[in-house]
Amino acid sequence: MPNQKQPIEQTFVALSDPTRRAVVQKLSEGSATVSQLANPFKMALPSFTQHLGVLEDAGLIVSRREGRSRVCSLNPTALKDAEEWMASYRQQWERRMDRYEVHLETVKKETSND
Amino acid sequence: MPNQKQPIEQTFVALSDPTRRAVVQKLSEGSATVSQLANPFKMALPSFTQHLGVLEDAGLIVSRREGRSRVCSLNPTALKDAEEWMASYRQQWERRMDRYEVHLETVKKETSND
Repeated sequence: MPNQKQPIEQTFVALSDPTRRAVVQKLSEGSATVSQLANPFKMALPSFTQHLGVLEDAGLIVSRREGRSRVCSLNPTALKDAEEWMASYRQQWERRMDRYEVHLETVKKETSND
Repeated sequence: MPNQKQPIEQTFVALSDPTRRAVVQKLSEGSATVSQLANPFKMALPSFTQHLGVLEDAGLIVSRREGRSRVCSLNPTALKDAEEWMASYRQQWERRMDRYEVHLETVKKETSND
């Protein structure tokens, strides 16, 4: 049941593998055919296309047929969604820490004025 | 050999699980003890503490002993590193697309001037 996962989950699962991260990195330089992408990896083509399938299911890449080749491109939306997920909790924590520091500073001043 | 993975890999592996993402989300609101964190989950404590171990190994959380409790806090650095990893490739792709659009626009103008 591949579509029951949350999209953010699929993004993190997809990026937890070094081959798949290398594909994302390569595609950030421009679109490429499956053979061009597979070339640097010492891996059987069926295993490599499985990795591409995981990336495509996660929405990290899109592919289209061009003649006899399949051309893959990066889809930045899934990356942006995951970035925003992480940034929201990081920023919430940082704002909380900032307020805590202001509070400590106030307590310090009040104590020194006593 | 838990330390042989790249840190970015550990971050994505850690965030690929819904329980661990829920812990990150909870800790963004402030530090919490292991019992406070475990409370909403219908899970045996040893399984839950394993999840905390994965988050701590990935550098996403830190923990300290306070009396008889262990208190966990978010460590925003690992989130920021993963955000930056994703943003760098997304932005590289977006810059490439911008240049491509400018190029298409130029070709279009040159063609209409012929």
